[in-house]
Amino acid sequence: MRKIKDIRPIQLKDHKLYVINQLKLPKEKEWLELSTYQQVAEAIEKMIIRGAPLIGIVGAYGFAIGVKQILDEGRSLDDVRDVFDRLKNTRPTAVNLFWALERVWKKFERWTEEGRSGEELVNLLFKEAERIDLEDYHANKAIGGYGQVLLPERCNVLTHCNTGALATSGWGTALGVIRSAFENGKDITVYVDETRPYLQGSRLTAWELVEEGIPHYLITDNSAGFLMSKGIIDAIIVGADRITANGDVANKIGTYTLAVLAEAHGIPFYVAAPTSTFDLDTDSGKDIPIEERSQLEVKKCGGCDIAPEETEALNYSFDVTPASKITAIITEKGIISHVDKEHITKFLRYRGV
Amino acid sequence: MRKIKDIRPIQLKDHKLYVINQLKLPKEKEWLELSTYQQVAEAIEKMIIRGAPLIGIVGAYGFAIGVKQILDEGRSLDDVRDVFDRLKNTRPTAVNLFWALERVWKKFERWTEEGRSGEELVNLLFKEAERIDLEDYHANKAIGGYGQVLLPERCNVLTHCNTGALATSGWGTALGVIRSAFENGKDITVYVDETRPYLQGSRLTAWELVEEGIPHYLITDNSAGFLMSKGIIDAIIVGADRITANGDVANKIGTYTLAVLAEAHGIPFYVAAPTSTFDLDTDSGKDIPIEERSQLEVKKCGGCDIAPEETEALNYSFDVTPASKITAIITEKGIISHVDKEHITKFLRYRGV
Repeated sequence: MRKIKDIRPIQLKDHKLYVINQLKLPKEKEWLELSTYQQVAEAIEKMIIRGAPLIGIVGAYGFAIGVKQILDEGRSLDDVRDVFDRLKNTRPTAVNLFWALERVWKKFERWTEEGRSGEELVNLLFKEAERIDLEDYHANKAIGGYGQVLLPERCNVLTHCNTGALATSGWGTALGVIRSAFENGKDITVYVDETRPYLQGSRLTAWELVEEGIPHYLITDNSAGFLMSKGIIDAIIVGADRITANGDVANKIGTYTLAVLAEAHGIPFYVAAPTSTFDLDTDSGKDIPIEERSQLEVKKCGGCDIAPEETEALNYSFDVTPASKITAIITEKGIISHVDKEHITKFLRYRGV
Repeated sequence: MRKIKDIRPIQLKDHKLYVINQLKLPKEKEWLELSTYQQVAEAIEKMIIRGAPLIGIVGAYGFAIGVKQILDEGRSLDDVRDVFDRLKNTRPTAVNLFWALERVWKKFERWTEEGRSGEELVNLLFKEAERIDLEDYHANKAIGGYGQVLLPERCNVLTHCNTGALATSGWGTALGVIRSAFENGKDITVYVDETRPYLQGSRLTAWELVEEGIPHYLITDNSAGFLMSKGIIDAIIVGADRITANGDVANKIGTYTLAVLAEAHGIPFYVAAPTSTFDLDTDSGKDIPIEERSQLEVKKCGGCDIAPEETEALNYSFDVTPASKITAIITEKGIISHVDKEHITKFLRYRGV
């Protein structure tokens, strides 16, 4: 087994959250202190922290921080709904945020009904957030274990966006599978696409791979097809922001293009995500709200202006890949290798999700 | 007919070439003076000027400048071969450069055999370069005329890289078709992909469209597939750096990905290029040398660093799109609507190319 560093993007200390400012990577590893739920909400909106699982975890911590704030200020617990709403309205696409917030909200309701004291309530909510955090970490290790089996001993794997330690509690989902394969001694070379506009690939995934010493090449998003046509890519593995009942996957813009290319070249296309990413209340991908972010993110790159002022840019943050183009979904409970409504329903039911 | 500005990227004056420094667009429109063939060669290598037709034209001017230099310095005409070689070895993929250099070289040989005086020779060579320049301009207007017929009255057209006035003598090839359609009153919206790493789309094509007042949206390269899946794109039109005998097209990296996406979505995929782009001596795309440029172009964007220092990047500058994925090739002699060896051969023969 090769040794793997354990990068963790957030730390809780004295009821305050410390997060690596992902806007500053890879140039600088700056830790930011978030001590109010408003700061937490802003950190999610501005993508100081990002990644579907991580914004769920941070949302849960933010909720605990918000409840503490309200109690510290002597306000009524009725105001806790504002905390919930503020955090919920930060970003619309990833379902993990809503999943985590619903989970802590239900606990909050139960514990207040039980008549817990303010201090008890706050401690319990922080504990619940820590549980979500830890569960995510273990889920990722399990995803890695299941997923790495799918990668051959020698493998050129292409990945998109950042789905690593920085997008999760630690280890990562799609990048976690790559970590696990590397840890198991496989001869892996990662093709990292830069993932414009936010550059999660070149800034964050490449940074993690440098930290781990995993061999990799950075490529522009538009060269993926060419590399596939040359037979260089053996597998593609990506994360997910939301998986609907029928197996459609919303993920970082560019994922769909990779899935079309994978199908055209007969390359397996894997999605790695914890079961908290499933949204069975949504039938199919066309019902997923797709976040549109500021056009300035496209008109700038790494801080530099790259387009005429007068030009308008479109900035869809996610796209939807239909279930039919997905070879398998790798979860912490095992692998779904027929991606359709029937198999997903059975899989989740039998595993008690 | 709408009014169109006539952007011209180069000017000849007193045997010196003045070129818009395309590295500085869109922030600044700087004219650079090139008075030696070495400066011309460097301008091509550094992509101060770029675009397959334009590097052919500039190569021809560079040759005339080089012959003048050699005569001014009282050196032997045997040294002219060095000028030819220096210019030829600037960039390997676009065939127009070799086509233009061969053309002026043959004229040079004939005129020296005819015993022309030095002054006559220089004047004739500059005239020949100007002829290549002007022919390209008229070819582009003809390409625009033929091509614009293919675009419906209301049309969302996606284009890649820069194939406009800045890539040619003026008007442009693929972007020239869009100009002609707009000039003819068609309701055109252009989806400009940014075209990493050099950003020909966001920096150059967007700049031209702003200058012309043609409606457009800038998008990241990786969002093309998503827009197609939403039914937003009606047609794709790109240029070419080289078209082989069987109709395979080498063009800016990312073209192949767009062709695969176009096929998957049933969207017409057009290539617009002058007949000087055909390389009938090369059988198919696999024989085209693909330029690899510095990895720093990928690790930077618009001048900003975007990746860890330790990360290695791949920078293939072009890719190859197989003939089977091309709906039609639009040339100044008409449209090739069955893209294969037989039809290309007949088309070029009947039109006396």
